[in-house]
This record gives sequence, structure tokens and C-alpha cells, in this order.
Amino acid sequence: MELVTKYKPIIDRAIQAIHERTFFAQYPEHPSPAIYGEEADKKGREKFQAQVGKKFEELLQGESSKWIGDEESPYLQEPLKISYPSYSVEELLSRADKAFHQWRKVKADKRAAILVESLERVKERFFEIAYATMHTTGQGYMMAFQASGPHAADRALEALAMGYEELTRFPEKTVWDKPMGKYNLTLNKEWRAIPKGVGVVIGCSTFPTWNSVPGMYASLVTGNPVIIKPHPGAVLPIAIFVAEVQKVLQEEGLDPNICQLGVDSFSNMITKELVEDPRVKIIDYTGNSTFGNYLEGLKDKFVFTEKTGVNSAIIDSAEDIDKVIGNLAFSLSLYSGQMCTAPQNFYIPASGIKTANGTVSFDEFAKKFADNVQGLIDNPKAGPFVLGAIQNKNTCDRVDQVENSKHKVVLSSGVIENPMFKNARIATPVVLEVDATQKEDFSQELFGPIALLIKTKDTAQSVALAKEMALKHGAISCGAYTTDPETREMIADEMSLAATPVSFNLTGGIYVNQHAGFSDFHVTGGNPAGNASFTNPEYVIKRFTWVGFREPV
Amino acid sequence: MELVTKYKPIIDRAIQAIHERTFFAQYPEHPSPAIYGEEADKKGREKFQAQVGKKFEELLQGESSKWIGDEESPYLQEPLKISYPSYSVEELLSRADKAFHQWRKVKADKRAAILVESLERVKERFFEIAYATMHTTGQGYMMAFQASGPHAADRALEALAMGYEELTRFPEKTVWDKPMGKYNLTLNKEWRAIPKGVGVVIGCSTFPTWNSVPGMYASLVTGNPVIIKPHPGAVLPIAIFVAEVQKVLQEEGLDPNICQLGVDSFSNMITKELVEDPRVKIIDYTGNSTFGNYLEGLKDKFVFTEKTGVNSAIIDSAEDIDKVIGNLAFSLSLYSGQMCTAPQNFYIPASGIKTANGTVSFDEFAKKFADNVQGLIDNPKAGPFVLGAIQNKNTCDRVDQVENSKHKVVLSSGVIENPMFKNARIATPVVLEVDATQKEDFSQELFGPIALLIKTKDTAQSVALAKEMALKHGAISCGAYTTDPETREMIADEMSLAATPVSFNLTGGIYVNQHAGFSDFHVTGGNPAGNASFTNPEYVIKRFTWVGFREPV
Repeated sequence: MELVTKYKPIIDRAIQAIHERTFFAQYPEHPSPAIYGEEADKKGREKFQAQVGKKFEELLQGESSKWIGDEESPYLQEPLKISYPSYSVEELLSRADKAFHQWRKVKADKRAAILVESLERVKERFFEIAYATMHTTGQGYMMAFQASGPHAADRALEALAMGYEELTRFPEKTVWDKPMGKYNLTLNKEWRAIPKGVGVVIGCSTFPTWNSVPGMYASLVTGNPVIIKPHPGAVLPIAIFVAEVQKVLQEEGLDPNICQLGVDSFSNMITKELVEDPRVKIIDYTGNSTFGNYLEGLKDKFVFTEKTGVNSAIIDSAEDIDKVIGNLAFSLSLYSGQMCTAPQNFYIPASGIKTANGTVSFDEFAKKFADNVQGLIDNPKAGPFVLGAIQNKNTCDRVDQVENSKHKVVLSSGVIENPMFKNARIATPVVLEVDATQKEDFSQELFGPIALLIKTKDTAQSVALAKEMALKHGAISCGAYTTDPETREMIADEMSLAATPVSFNLTGGIYVNQHAGFSDFHVTGGNPAGNASFTNPEYVIKRFTWVGFREPV
Repeated sequence: MELVTKYKPIIDRAIQAIHERTFFAQYPEHPSPAIYGEEADKKGREKFQAQVGKKFEELLQGESSKWIGDEESPYLQEPLKISYPSYSVEELLSRADKAFHQWRKVKADKRAAILVESLERVKERFFEIAYATMHTTGQGYMMAFQASGPHAADRALEALAMGYEELTRFPEKTVWDKPMGKYNLTLNKEWRAIPKGVGVVIGCSTFPTWNSVPGMYASLVTGNPVIIKPHPGAVLPIAIFVAEVQKVLQEEGLDPNICQLGVDSFSNMITKELVEDPRVKIIDYTGNSTFGNYLEGLKDKFVFTEKTGVNSAIIDSAEDIDKVIGNLAFSLSLYSGQMCTAPQNFYIPASGIKTANGTVSFDEFAKKFADNVQGLIDNPKAGPFVLGAIQNKNTCDRVDQVENSKHKVVLSSGVIENPMFKNARIATPVVLEVDATQKEDFSQELFGPIALLIKTKDTAQSVALAKEMALKHGAISCGAYTTDPETREMIADEMSLAATPVSFNLTGGIYVNQHAGFSDFHVTGGNPAGNASFTNPEYVIKRFTWVGFREPV
């Protein structure tokens, strides 16, 4: 069946989901044999293992004389020795520029269908991508599967569906017929959505597909060729996405260079040379704020960033403090605090937390929290899999540094054994007590398994500090606990002015870290944590220009 | 009837019109007694005349100890001596900031209805606004009525309707219900559109309402208070809009400072102090590129600009060259080339223009064009009313300067008498011949009644030059004449890559200068002529942030 006809129902359903914002997933998140097949996991693992130490030869973007690769596994702490073709910036850009003029003339429905087909093929490789993600990011198996596979594919589908909706929002043609009294002025009018030009997507080391595919698919569906510039430490997961897109393009008689992979190495980074070229019009970026701010400051570019933030948990009152603590301890521990949505600053009133069973003092909270984290990581059936491994050694150094600061240590960071990977790079969470007056010590992102319990005068001060941090330094998430409706509204209103989404009273199996495709806008774009949002209309609209033509009938 | 109920049909109809993009107007453009009443014109003129020399006392934004006013009539070449209350930047901003927290909490449908009510009241003052516009901008009566009255009101309605649509695009609340196998995870979710903060709208001297009300109404409907900073030379027309908005706000029990007028003087401009204040988040601007580029470079602001451009007419071939020339001569002469959409660079092949009656040589075209312009301006029933007056004396100086350049003068600028205003500042169009090789002489906007007939090798060069000008210096319009479908598509495709709309083969009563509300995107936002467009979705979306809240059921 022709792709456009085949995938129209999926695209229509995705657009509907974007508007309903209720639960929707095109790609099942559970790595279940019943869904993905009995052999899928085993085959995926074998395929990944067969790739280790070899050239990645699936790309269709032309010969390269040089092969490079810097990935190493945080679980094995040794290089993967996978190599990728290397191209000069000029090679990448001249090919992209050529491909632009072919791709921009492909109809929007065809572009969207090609992109859905690529996701359907990636679906067949979710397990391989999961192992590739584990051994580049250090994520646990379940997160690696979900985040890099189905959740990423859903975010890609969301972005392309939003793009398709915007591209078809105005009529291609219409007759404009103006009554002038004795006669009518009649014009044929036409509108075209003109893509901006070459896009570059700059990946990060911790979520190499989830954070990159929205920009990649948003640029592609709106007619822009893209160059994916992955983090040198996490290439393979996104390389598989790119390879599948290229294969579909080639089968459809199109230039595979519409979507290129531009790998670089730690010793020879190409990003600046790439993005500063005038041919590059669109930049998508996930990473640190310093480089993100540099990108946002580039002239004549459309830049979409997710940078860093200082996330907060505001604890005012609760029905059951143990459930609250269980939830927060898991949120901190999940992938060792290496999620952009992980809470860092926990604001707790000095007078304690009102609960159904009386007030829980600051010290009681601190002890219960430390005990809960310790219990979680000491549980052999949970700890190693929840924590995963530390992607970058610098994160371990940061944990040490924080632990050796002047503040009271509520829980020390340590090491646990991962039964499957004896050599895994691990640092369990460190928890410190900080006073609200020591603002300089909690006014920055401390990436990794680091929690600060901040003693405030009262909830009003907690909220004021969380808001100030979000306004000044950015924030991607806020978890708040209160049983008082007025306090709830006060928190919602104040944090909304800092463009920070708030999850209230989460307990049980749902965490502040999780942002669901088709429902939660990930990063609002309204504070320094980033100027873009997965996926609001702005995210796709800025990638093309409406241009009109008219002529008398 | 309550405003929300009363105006829902108008808002719904406007949203429908935005999507259909066929002809639609809420406010009739013809100043006809049958529509606006027998006395409307006379009363409007008298009301304007009664305002001359007096304080403008309609504003509800608080006392001022100082009254200022610099307006002078281009028709009379004397000061209007109308004065407006003056406020410090701090007064304006502290009031706006206070009003913000009231206005942002007003529901979107209420905000939209209040704004429609203000337009309905402005409608009663269209004639007064027309005379105010004539005597500040120099526009002819008909243009002054249409552009500052009904067309501006339609553009305001378009902007507020687009804003309302975006504000209601996602559900306010929904239940997110995720099947987890043995149980469901169920969250109540809520989304709020959070306005960015104080908006400043910087007006221009030639279209004081048409160019300002889209930004003003777009910011207001999305919950942002605005400060209108008019051009010191053209205050009264927009002051009337602001006064009517303030009256409706007060009647609805709201703070009139939600919409303030911030007048300054030529000797003491407040714009930089205003826009650089951190409380100002949104800036709308129409004016020169130097100041526009400065505004676009400001950090942490959402800036919407219409700057300058180098508009083109590409003449390849035609059925009837006289009809083409009649149309272009009118486009050049209309308001003496002081429209941002007026053509400036006329590209004509050295080999001439193919027509149904044989080839018309470059020189023949030049002569016919000059004759046609001269005929138009010498027609006492047309000339004075089409030309209007010159807003700024600098424009006359520029005409002189151009005429005394090295290029061959095809038609000299002169003066004609306006029978109603003997002292009107007038400069009739100057037409020069320039060779395509003399690129530096046609690579900038020459604001005013100035046309350059550029002799090119062929149409391919004509298009390449028009495209290059648009890409480097911006362009808001392009008129093209060709009878060849392939050439037509080539022009459309090439100019689309420079984000320039093209009007093909206009003859008769429709001109390249005219951009219709609800249909033509005015300025695409995709080239240096401006980063914004009346009114595309981006124009309203960037004025607020989607923020989500969620909580277990």
C-alpha cells in the first residue's frame, strides 16, 4: 500500500491525541514478548553485541575515508570501539543544501508518511536501541528501552503530527472574491509553507534519542533537511534512527542526505563550525546552558534549546508522609538523578510538614527520606536497576565535591554492586541539609544524584525560592505536596509565572520525572531551562514561513 | 447583553475567516453615508477640528502634571497643538505591572469580548480617526479612512481572533488515564496559557493604527498589559483606540492601565528606557531597520518587527502593457510611495517585454510609465487625492538627492497643487533608469515616491536580483508580470525562498500595495523586512506560555 494512504490513520490519530491530551501511545512502552515477540529481546542484544568493535555501515550518505568513535560503556567502563564514517562540515552542508531543494518539493503528506514509516521500522529495533542506550548513557534496561524506543518514537510522531497539522492549517488555494458594488474583484490565491533551510540537531549524552528525535522529525516534516550531530559519547541509538530514515528515503527515490549523521569526536568537535555556517537555519539542542546560550545568541538562526534547570520539590502538607517520601526518593534515585526532570532542591518548612498523623518535623523528614533512599538502593531487586550507571565521571566528582562541602550530610553517596556489571560506574545519592539563607549553594544545577533539603521559614518562602530559581536559572519540573486548596492554587499561580509545570501530590507509580508524549509539554520554553517545548505549536511553526501568491482570475 | 455572549458570533466568524482566507471584512471599508450615517463624516471632521489645539482628555490612566504634543499636519505644514498627558517610564511600567496581575486572571473569552467591544466603539469614530490620520500622516482621505479605520479594526479583530483560537486550542482540563495492566494510573491535568508580561507597541508615523493595533490586540487578548508608544508625529489616531479600550475596561470593573498610552516627544524619546526595562517582555515595532535590529537583539524579549525592505516589480511579459503600466504607476503614486508595500525596483529586460502586440522595448516602457505617472498626477480629480502629502520633510530631501544622482532621470519629481490644502507638502514621483550592474544604487530602501527602472540581461537576472535584495535587505511585496507559466512558477519558487509574497499580473483596481486582512499574511517574517506577520499563528503564540499541572485523581 502506498505510504500516504497507509499512514494517514496514524497521523490523524496522533493529531487527535495532541488536542485531547489524554493518554495516548502509538508504541507500547512495555518490552513484553507478547507485544514485541519472544525472540525480540535476545535478538536485539545479539545485534548490539555484534556491532561492538565494528564499523556502523548502515548509513547511505556516501563514502568516507575516515572512521571515528569515542563511545564507552558506563556499565563496563571500557570503549565500545564502534566507529562511524566521518565527514567534513563542508561535505555535510553541501549535501544537505542539495537535498533541501528535493525535499522541500515533496508534499507534506508524503513527508509525514515517510517519517512514520521510519518509526515503524525503528520499532523493529527497539531492543537493539535499548542495549545501545544502556551502554552509552548508563540508563537501566527498562528506562533505556522505554525512553530511547517507544517514548522517543511517540515524541517523534507527536512532533511530526503537530508539524503536519500546521502545514495543512491554511488552504493551499482559494478564490478571494471581494464585492466592489458594481463588480467583484476576484483573485486566485495560493499559500506555500516554505521551509527555512538546513537544520542541525545537537544530541546529548544521557537521552540520545528522546531529546533529539522531536527536533529531527519536526524539521524534516516541515521540509528542512537535517544533520544529526550526536554527542560523541552516545551515537549508536540515534544512528539507528538516522539509518532507518535514510533507507525509507532511498526506497522512495529520494536523496538519503535529507537526513545525515554528522559524528564528531571529543578531540575534534565540529558543532560550532557546523552551526555558524550561513546555510544552517535551524538548530535543535539539548545540553549545558553555556553552549545553549551561545547558540540562542547566534544571528539569523531559529534555535530550539533544552538547557539546564534547578528543579524543586515543595513540601507543605500531606495525607501520608511515607508515601510522599517513597515517591520522592524514587524520583531522585531514578537513573541516579541524571534526568533533566529530576528534583534537586527540596523545600521543607522549619516548622515541619502537617500530615493526617500530626506534624512531621524537618529532621524526621530528613531521616525518613535518607532511610527510604538507602532502602531502595540496598534492595537488590531494585537498587541497581533504578540507579543505572553514571554516564560521565565528572558527575561522580561533583557528588564527591558536594558531599565534602560545608553542609550537613543527611545521606552519604556510596557504591553498590550491579550483579550483571561488576565494573559499572555507580554513585548512590547524596543528601545534604541546607538553610534557606544559603542561597548561593542551591542556585545552580547540580547534575547527578544530589538532593538538597532546604529548611525554609514557611511554605510561602519555599514557593518564593522555587520560583526565583526557576526564573533565574530555569526549571523543568516542580513537585508539590499540599492538602490545602488555597496553598495549591498559590503554588500553581506562582510557579506558572516562572513557566514551571507542577505535579501535585504524586504518590505511587507516577513520578515528577515523567513527561508523557501527547499530553505533558516537556520544558515550557518560558524560563531559562530552554526556549522550546515538546511539542507545542511554536516548536514546528518557526521551522517554515507562509508565503502567499495571488493573481486575478 | 453580556459581552461574551454578544460577541461570540463575531469572534467565531473571524476565526472561520482566518482559516478560509477568502474575502471577509467585519468593518465596511467604504465611507458611505448609507453605512455610517448621513452625518458621520461631518461630525467626525468637526470632532477632529475641535480637538486641534486642545488637550486630549479622554484617557483614564491617571493624572499627569505635564502635557506634550509634537504633531503637525503635512497638509497644513503647521503644528496641530494637540497635547497628551506625559508619564515617566516608571509610572507607566509600575501601573502596567500592577494591571498585569488583574488582566492575566480574566478569562480568554472575556478578554476577547472586551476587545471586540472596543472595536465596535472605535467604529463610531472612524471618520474622526480618518481626519486625525490625514493630518498626521499626510494620507489622502480615502486611504486615511480605510487604513486607519475599518482595515485597522479588521486587522485588530484578526489578531485577537487568532489569539483566542490559540488560547483555546488545548483543553483547560482533562483526565489522563493510563492502563498499566492490573490497574490504571489516573491524573487530573490542567493547562494554563500564561501571558509573558508587559508589552510595548512602538508606532510609526505613516500608519499609526494599522501597523500598531495587531500587536496591541494580540498582546491584550493573550493576557498581557500593553503600553502604546506612538510616533511623536502621529498620536491622535491611536490615542482614540486606546481611549476606547480604557473606557470598556473601566466599565467592566477592570484597571484601565491594562492598556496605556505612553506619548513622548522628539526632544525626549522614551522608547529605549521603556523597552530595556526587565518588566517589558513583549515588543511590537514598525519603523526603520536600524532601530528594529537593535530591538531584535535585546535579550529575554519577544520582539515582533516590521522594518524596511526593497520591494520589486518584475516585468517579463504581458497581454496588455498599458494595463500593466497603469497599475504600476498607481502603485507607485499611491500615498506618494510611503507605503511599506510600494514597489521601488522595477526590473525590465534590456531586450524588452513580450506582449500580445509585439515586444515593448525598455525605453518604450520607461516613456509609457513616466507618461502614465504624469497623467495620473496631473488629473485634478485623482492626483492630489492619490498622492496625499509627504509625512516627513526628509522624504522630500531624499527625492531631491536621488534625482540629482548620476542616473538618467526618466521623470522628474515636482509639485502639484492640492485644491483643499494649498500649503500641503508634496513631491510627485521621480523615476530613474539604472543598470543592473549598478547594484549598490538599488540595494537599499529609498522611502518615498522613488522608482528605479533597472535594465537587466533577462528575466532570470531580474528574478535573481529581486531575490537577492529580499534576502539581504528584506522585501514586503513583489509584483510580477508574465504570460509564461514556467516563468511564473520560477518566479514564485525563487521569491518564496526569499520569503516574499508575489502578486502576479495585477491590472485594474487591485494593487500590489494592498494586503487584505484575514487573507494576505502581511510581511512574511522570513526575510530582513521583519520577523513577524499579520497575523500568522506565531504572532500570537509567542505572547504566552503553556504551563501544565497534574495531580492523581
